[in-house]
Amino acid sequence: VSPRQSQVRELLVHLDRSGQAPISRQLEEQLREAIQDGRLESGQTLPSTRMLAEDLAVSRGVVVRAYTQLAAEGYVTMRQGTNPSVGAIGTPLAETALREQADPSPRLRYDLRPERPDLSQFPRGDWLRSVRHALNRATDAELGYADCRGLHVLRQELARYLARARGLAITADRIVITVGSTHALTLIEHVLHRRGERTIGLENPSHELMHRLARRCGLEPVGIAVDEEGLRVDALVASRVTAVVVSPAHQFPTGVAYTAERRAELARWAEETGGLILEDDYDAEFRYDRSPIGALQGLAPERVAYIGSTSKTLIPGLRLGWVVLPSALIDDVATELGESMLHHSALEQLAFADFLRRGELDRHLRRMRLLYRRRRDSLVTALARAAPQFPVSGTAAGLHLLLELPSAGDEASACAHASKHGIAVQCVGDHTLPGYGGVRGLLIGYGTLQEAAVDLAVRELASALAVTPSMARNDSAGSAAAGLLARVA
Amino acid sequence: VSPRQSQVRELLVHLDRSGQAPISRQLEEQLREAIQDGRLESGQTLPSTRMLAEDLAVSRGVVVRAYTQLAAEGYVTMRQGTNPSVGAIGTPLAETALREQADPSPRLRYDLRPERPDLSQFPRGDWLRSVRHALNRATDAELGYADCRGLHVLRQELARYLARARGLAITADRIVITVGSTHALTLIEHVLHRRGERTIGLENPSHELMHRLARRCGLEPVGIAVDEEGLRVDALVASRVTAVVVSPAHQFPTGVAYTAERRAELARWAEETGGLILEDDYDAEFRYDRSPIGALQGLAPERVAYIGSTSKTLIPGLRLGWVVLPSALIDDVATELGESMLHHSALEQLAFADFLRRGELDRHLRRMRLLYRRRRDSLVTALARAAPQFPVSGTAAGLHLLLELPSAGDEASACAHASKHGIAVQCVGDHTLPGYGGVRGLLIGYGTLQEAAVDLAVRELASALAVTPSMARNDSAGSAAAGLLARVA
Repeated sequence: VSPRQSQVRELLVHLDRSGQAPISRQLEEQLREAIQDGRLESGQTLPSTRMLAEDLAVSRGVVVRAYTQLAAEGYVTMRQGTNPSVGAIGTPLAETALREQADPSPRLRYDLRPERPDLSQFPRGDWLRSVRHALNRATDAELGYADCRGLHVLRQELARYLARARGLAITADRIVITVGSTHALTLIEHVLHRRGERTIGLENPSHELMHRLARRCGLEPVGIAVDEEGLRVDALVASRVTAVVVSPAHQFPTGVAYTAERRAELARWAEETGGLILEDDYDAEFRYDRSPIGALQGLAPERVAYIGSTSKTLIPGLRLGWVVLPSALIDDVATELGESMLHHSALEQLAFADFLRRGELDRHLRRMRLLYRRRRDSLVTALARAAPQFPVSGTAAGLHLLLELPSAGDEASACAHASKHGIAVQCVGDHTLPGYGGVRGLLIGYGTLQEAAVDLAVRELASALAVTPSMARNDSAGSAAAGLLARVA
Repeated sequence: VSPRQSQVRELLVHLDRSGQAPISRQLEEQLREAIQDGRLESGQTLPSTRMLAEDLAVSRGVVVRAYTQLAAEGYVTMRQGTNPSVGAIGTPLAETALREQADPSPRLRYDLRPERPDLSQFPRGDWLRSVRHALNRATDAELGYADCRGLHVLRQELARYLARARGLAITADRIVITVGSTHALTLIEHVLHRRGERTIGLENPSHELMHRLARRCGLEPVGIAVDEEGLRVDALVASRVTAVVVSPAHQFPTGVAYTAERRAELARWAEETGGLILEDDYDAEFRYDRSPIGALQGLAPERVAYIGSTSKTLIPGLRLGWVVLPSALIDDVATELGESMLHHSALEQLAFADFLRRGELDRHLRRMRLLYRRRRDSLVTALARAAPQFPVSGTAAGLHLLLELPSAGDEASACAHASKHGIAVQCVGDHTLPGYGGVRGLLIGYGTLQEAAVDLAVRELASALAVTPSMARNDSAGSAAAGLLARVA
């Protein structure tokens, strides 16, 4: 149905019944004005005379007279057997103001940003089946102002899923459904602020959105160093923060997977100091090393708030997330949620519950894991060929890897060069907090990287690497670039 | 599909390949543990030996040995030709912790609270068709991290709808899609606070949630009196606030529809002082007086932020709202939204766009308007019979009316009595700010009130009215109640 063919039913007509002006004339004038200023668009079907008369509580003759006059002027087209429609008269609002540009999305040749799942793989048919099921089965109460923590049936399915797939120690009453994982983090940070906290520990580096988010919640971020085993707990202790956000399964952005020792050490810190760990499990479902690591939450369920979402496993556009809370946080987070009225759509909560129950998420993850692993493998191979002097790390899980570069200058110049040539990448420097002294390099996402495009994309990237200061120092930039390109070709 | 029949694919198994323990034994122990502690539930289908072997990168014999041992112990059931499944062994987590109570919703006999649309009327089939259409037509980009202001196609459809149905002066680029109307209000109040505002004008009375919301955003609510023509603009001027939240179409809670004069006066105040009007158009689509009043926004588009949602027209569970902004607010609100990542689900935005385009909302509103009008008429008739001494007002629009009572004491005692007898109502006093001196009474919602139940519900209410202090003064409470009951019967 094109907008032009839609039928107008709701239409603002205000009739003055004091008798000062004929009703029919008033109706005629208001319709004419609506057509002139574009509120009614050319081609739209108007209500039948009977229907409009009924709606306005006027006699049918009043409407017939108004329509007839407008038809004579060309504003309305009347044809035997069909409803009248708006004529093809100029509609300034429709043709100028309303017709905006489509969202201007810059034309990228290669989108190698991290955190981009392959949107084309979203199982639309399976999702539709779950929506249909949700619409068939939903109780009326579930469609109203429901439990602010999320619908019970979803929290129950999610508890089952998270227990078996991510090793959580969990019951449904510990879960709160959110509008994505950023919302979950915001809720907890608001509660911490209300409780008097003014700082929060963040991995250094960590997602730059988290830095801004913490500040918006009134918490100053304190960067805690990360090494190749995970968050440095000695630095955490020294920082004196009482809460810290971590991503143990696949540290963002370095891609480090916390070692078992470091995870235990971190859990011990929380148990001993009463500290709070916010575990951001943003892309852990995609692990390729055959030895999945359970969530940290399973080690210390009363000290960890576990945060997840469907943004990487399905699509970001769903905006569906959750947080599994220690008992000491549940009431405050629920209050925060209840007053803000920020809940996810009930129908989609029910659809996702059905999607989990049918095992559709499991099936989808199995398929995607194979696909992403192939893309990762191709990318790793191509990078090893094209730029063997730069180590690749962070490949065990997730949707991006780290191509390590010698210096901050190198990553900045490589990023800038890539961007100029239509390749979107990010670098570690986009995500550092003050005092950072760790690894540097490019974050290369392969979620949307078709295998057939890998070699071409890496060839383009290599030319960006060739102009970095380190490469230029080693050799003349030109011949280094030529060497890189030769290897890729 | 019951949870019991679902297939387990995602399962956290961690195999130590150092050779210290046989792989098969490790697998067996971990599966047993998962079944014992309820992560795997009785009846769930397990992966085939081939599939699990592939997933864990072990030989198929390893999995067969583990399954066979568990089958011997009763943990796993194996049958020719089907996948193995979890046996009927005790599952403590599933049977105790996971099996929570359903949400304890108090058993009401009559839910006469305001703001309750009839959830049973949600056009599930039409909505499903729109979801199907959305899933068929969505571009991949629309499923990703899209424009934080909302998807363009929905903003465009909504602009058309609001222009013709509510008389807004609007283009799509003025609209921001939100997670319900409270979210829209929160966004603007956050922006006002960032700009240095510390107070905000609210109608007195106004929804008590708004009082708390303003305070959460750092704005102290200043109550502005409402009389039978709308907000008192002289009181607004005297208050010196620079922003005010109003509900001109059907003032909440009194039900007053602002007169044309008062609307013009309010618009003039904003134009002359540079003030901001936040127009909460929460239930204006349901108007019964045959003379729909356009939104105030149409009078002063650069001074009014117009807020609406689907909570009353469709169902609250959708959590879909919007705000139409003056140009001076657009950038700040978009920034606020972009950083919070609080967007409505892309699929439902697309579904609602389709729903609007097909004219389904128009059709639904026409049907609901007739239904609600009949319910309102029956309620008004029954109240006039049962309690003729109490005026009824606020009936021109919306989903509730006001039964005026002489005093705050009367409404409090009527509410308490009603609640004790399983009737949920609210009173004006639930929504007042300090300094209130206006009308008092019960807010009676008729959105969910079946016509057949009207007389019984009003009879129950009348007994609550009979015990109010005023009635008791006029007569002995007993005989007044008897009189009321006789009239209803």
